Amino acid sequence: MSSICVDACGGDQAPHAVVRAALTARADGVPVVLAGPADRLRATLDCGDLPILDAPEAFDEGLSPLEAIRAAPGSSVAVGLQALHEGRVSALVSCGPSGAVLLQSVRTLGVMRGLSRPALAVSLPRPSGPPALLIDAGANVDCRSEHLVDFARLGVAWLRATGREHVRVGLLSNGAEPGKGTAVVRAALSALAELGPPAVGEVVGQIEPHVALAGGCDVLVADGFVGNVMLKSLEAAHEVVLGHLRGRIPDAQSALGELSWSRFGAASLLGVEGLVYVGHGRSGHAAVLSAIREAHRTAARDPLTSLRATLGED
Amino acid sequence: MSSICVDACGGDQAPHAVVRAALTARADGVPVVLAGPADRLRATLDCGDLPILDAPEAFDEGLSPLEAIRAAPGSSVAVGLQALHEGRVSALVSCGPSGAVLLQSVRTLGVMRGLSRPALAVSLPRPSGPPALLIDAGANVDCRSEHLVDFARLGVAWLRATGREHVRVGLLSNGAEPGKGTAVVRAALSALAELGPPAVGEVVGQIEPHVALAGGCDVLVADGFVGNVMLKSLEAAHEVVLGHLRGRIPDAQSALGELSWSRFGAASLLGVEGLVYVGHGRSGHAAVLSAIREAHRTAARDPLTSLRATLGED
Repeated sequence: MSSICVDACGGDQAPHAVVRAALTARADGVPVVLAGPADRLRATLDCGDLPILDAPEAFDEGLSPLEAIRAAPGSSVAVGLQALHEGRVSALVSCGPSGAVLLQSVRTLGVMRGLSRPALAVSLPRPSGPPALLIDAGANVDCRSEHLVDFARLGVAWLRATGREHVRVGLLSNGAEPGKGTAVVRAALSALAELGPPAVGEVVGQIEPHVALAGGCDVLVADGFVGNVMLKSLEAAHEVVLGHLRGRIPDAQSALGELSWSRFGAASLLGVEGLVYVGHGRSGHAAVLSAIREAHRTAARDPLTSLRATLGED
Repeated sequence: MSSICVDACGGDQAPHAVVRAALTARADGVPVVLAGPADRLRATLDCGDLPILDAPEAFDEGLSPLEAIRAAPGSSVAVGLQALHEGRVSALVSCGPSGAVLLQSVRTLGVMRGLSRPALAVSLPRPSGPPALLIDAGANVDCRSEHLVDFARLGVAWLRATGREHVRVGLLSNGAEPGKGTAVVRAALSALAELGPPAVGEVVGQIEPHVALAGGCDVLVADGFVGNVMLKSLEAAHEVVLGHLRGRIPDAQSALGELSWSRFGAASLLGVEGLVYVGHGRSGHAAVLSAIREAHRTAARDPLTSLRATLGED
């Protein structure tokens, strides 16, 4: 199978931590190529025998996403996405500025037929059982009810494409009672109830954060603003609690083990014609490595063929 | 000074845990009266010598807030608020259904002049330094930008009325960059910047959850839907982390001490003509007691006079 393309320029710890993660993944047998300024990377870092897709331009982070991608048509993100579009790599992993990565992905790869917008999906680890998929985790800030319906369809189709069977869909809300939620949430819920399974799985209604973490649904639908606030609140609470305990209980961090709320995996950009993983800007070696491995595992299943088929049936 | 009125009927653990908390507070010297069905309370519980404002009717929780308060004009909440309105008590503490408590408060007490809507304010404990005040934590689900501006004015006036001097206001957002936030958040930010200090304190712009917890602002403004999702996400993460650690590290809970994310104090309903504290429906003895003490401390400062004056100057 073809390689995972890793954006060597994206993230606060790029290129060092990113290139090291790529080297580790390659040593483990994952085929990896970098996208970035080849001469500069080779001159300043040990890139081993990693192939590099040359991308001499960098995003100007002072610009808006649209301005940034227009000003740098030869960015590592643009070059990586072009390779993905042409089938020369099987996925892109980037920890670059998410607005620019999203916009460039839509432009280069296109949005899947029958969908209004792509969305970011993040797995929320739970103490037991499979994670809940939060969608949208930050791509779309002002949403109408039909967008939330599309996120539900996407989330359900994605979980099925990656091997889950019975999928329950909930809408993130401030309460579980019938009247709760914004007007947009309530309208989306009515529309989902009308669509019904199989298109949107089993609709379980409004879901509060603690219920989602306790396994109350498999797909947690939110507009990107609220979903992002939820995600960042979970991270923030986790960091505050661990920071507070660290001085008192040395084992607190390691005792949490897999339940590392401060290190959600990279988000999957669902609904574009290609596998794109968007990592946290703060990602270090471990986070980038984990994203590369996830991209590799997922690409091997070819979920996009199944995703297209499911969405086409709706 | 006059008593704190405690709604004996509100909350999952009422009346037992509520009456016990009222008795503890009274033993500590806090003047307390109960509101509830006097005969039934005295027949089934040891109420000591606590005065009881007789309120024979109960909310039907199957009804909407509006239907519930219409169907029970003699509820403990209605009776307690009427006593507050007439100055016979200085504050009401209720863990009853928040929608009904809010609506009855607006009807009985009225909204302060110059405000569009009241809002729920919750103190977010931080590892160090004074807490940030989250407003609105759940009263108003669909908000326009002028509502967010009112929440900022209310929050700033409240912190000043309770003794804080320099107050920084931020808007809860998915990112800190200038373009981030929903259209409503961005419009509110422009309006706040135009108003400027002193009405709305120092405006520090968009604030992400982890920045708020790190002390990036004193008043964190959000619409009630997003604010409630943030609050419940913080609680949920805290509970999950502690639950996970409990089996491994017996001291985890006690080591957290004051940083008890799972036990935010009662929310203050700001913007109505009276001091109303709305506790979590799950509140037990400790949470109700803490709310009664806070109501007592706050009532002693008479913050509403100062709040009215500040809002009147805007």
